[in-house]
Amino acid sequence: METVKIGILGLGTVGGGAYEILKMNRELIEKRIQKKIEVVKVLERNMERINSLGLSESTATQNPDDIINDPEIDIVVEALGGIEPSSTFMLNALNNGKSVVTPNKAAVAANFDKLREAAVKNDVEFRFEASVGGGIPALTAIQEALCGNEFSEVMGIVNGTTNYILTKMTDLGLNYDDVLKDAQAKGFAEADPTADVEGIDVANKLSILMALCFDKYVPPAEIPTEGISKITMDDIEAAKSRNCKIKLIAHAKRNGEEIEYSVKPMEIDINHPLAGVSNEFNAIYITGNAVDEVMFYGKGAGALPTGSAIVGDILAIAKAM
Amino acid sequence: METVKIGILGLGTVGGGAYEILKMNRELIEKRIQKKIEVVKVLERNMERINSLGLSESTATQNPDDIINDPEIDIVVEALGGIEPSSTFMLNALNNGKSVVTPNKAAVAANFDKLREAAVKNDVEFRFEASVGGGIPALTAIQEALCGNEFSEVMGIVNGTTNYILTKMTDLGLNYDDVLKDAQAKGFAEADPTADVEGIDVANKLSILMALCFDKYVPPAEIPTEGISKITMDDIEAAKSRNCKIKLIAHAKRNGEEIEYSVKPMEIDINHPLAGVSNEFNAIYITGNAVDEVMFYGKGAGALPTGSAIVGDILAIAKAM
Repeated sequence: METVKIGILGLGTVGGGAYEILKMNRELIEKRIQKKIEVVKVLERNMERINSLGLSESTATQNPDDIINDPEIDIVVEALGGIEPSSTFMLNALNNGKSVVTPNKAAVAANFDKLREAAVKNDVEFRFEASVGGGIPALTAIQEALCGNEFSEVMGIVNGTTNYILTKMTDLGLNYDDVLKDAQAKGFAEADPTADVEGIDVANKLSILMALCFDKYVPPAEIPTEGISKITMDDIEAAKSRNCKIKLIAHAKRNGEEIEYSVKPMEIDINHPLAGVSNEFNAIYITGNAVDEVMFYGKGAGALPTGSAIVGDILAIAKAM
Repeated sequence: METVKIGILGLGTVGGGAYEILKMNRELIEKRIQKKIEVVKVLERNMERINSLGLSESTATQNPDDIINDPEIDIVVEALGGIEPSSTFMLNALNNGKSVVTPNKAAVAANFDKLREAAVKNDVEFRFEASVGGGIPALTAIQEALCGNEFSEVMGIVNGTTNYILTKMTDLGLNYDDVLKDAQAKGFAEADPTADVEGIDVANKLSILMALCFDKYVPPAEIPTEGISKITMDDIEAAKSRNCKIKLIAHAKRNGEEIEYSVKPMEIDINHPLAGVSNEFNAIYITGNAVDEVMFYGKGAGALPTGSAIVGDILAIAKAM
């Protein structure tokens, strides 16, 4: 059986999750794709992490070039996060003839065109299913199963932290500050929650969704973005009186030749499928001129759900090799 | 630009829908896959239908062999419905080296293994995304983006007629017979509704879902199947008192080494995502050991939604050719 060799840059929550899945489901994966997937090198300085995942210490390196320049490696998984040096690592890997898989929404949104072009030029694959909606396989569906559609609208609940906060405000009548503190205590929100609550993370994801749905790349900084930090219980109650729930929505819509786009809190009718997306769950709701309305729902974060998307991308590349 | 040639067996609602999408979205499809898709022959005796779709009369034939044996045709779309002669037509096309796409759940469920094996033997593709959940791209996701998962459970609302009836009984307090008559008048239910209301259609779809999720083929006739024709308003009210809605569920679940399966009305908690799937909408809810819970929602029937899935399959095959 042929072996496909993987290098992973960064064994944090998500990179580690992908590795765990490859180990846990090894037999069924080999049966399904008729190839072996072997993680041959990982960029990780924390040897406890290496040991706890059951990797041999000789697999670990502290030099990214040991992965990016290794002629044996077929696919590089970039799971370091942040725009740089991640984007440079990915470009170098693509230019070295390796396919790249990443969950890194900031880097994909910042350098979408460059990364895509490098993949095309080098005749390799660049896949990033995990960058939007964690484990939800929406990006693959948009590009493959739904690719006979002209899309007219996309609406996404694509940030678990803010959806958790809005759900608790709506269901329990708690105010924003109290829910945020609770979310931070539970580890659902970061100590500095700005990127989540001000919609910056969502803007990255909308940039990616728009590039795929409308073939229109808009840098995240150019997307009108409003977060949830100013939402009050009065807003929540006013929405309720109109039979609506407030949700932070990544929204893009075709209007003639133009695409209108924004990240902002919107009132969603309680009978709309997006209104039922609660707590840390994510969903992507798309309208196409053939399929009409379709929604993808699931966990937008977490080691194994996000790892599921990374592994799906790895296996798609491995099967086609 | 290379041209991929298609033959369509049956230009009814679904076959016609697929043709309409290929015509309506021709430019964007060519841009996306960098190939031309041309429908070169259709099995259809109704010349008014041929003309109304804008096909030339020379494209039409009344002899299926003109399509199945035409060496020029790359992909055969079988949209006749029914187990036979559809299954034989598909097997012959596969054995002639053509890839096959079909929305025909009865034929796929009846002859799953035979059709799959013929495709493998002849090194061609056999795709049937439209056979479960219409336009919802769940089958492709199960086999591709989610293929790193071991699945533990699948639950589907996969019949629009019965979901419409149950929704109206629940929301409007109308009894079964009255809603069924209304649904028949509106064209949502057939004059003979047996296959829908007794769960036979759902059993076909569960057979397909199980084959993909659990690699276990169970003929539909061997699936314990109970429809909705005995559901009373008392049942609906009793479910409501337990904060549940009654839904007709295609259900399969791993229990140790065994798979348990059934088609039957089940009480679904109103906070479960499946409870929000109303009227003619369909949804497939899957649990995997990596992705956890994921749901796919959309239109389970109709010319264009179902056509969207067929076209998605055609384009996947065309891209890989």
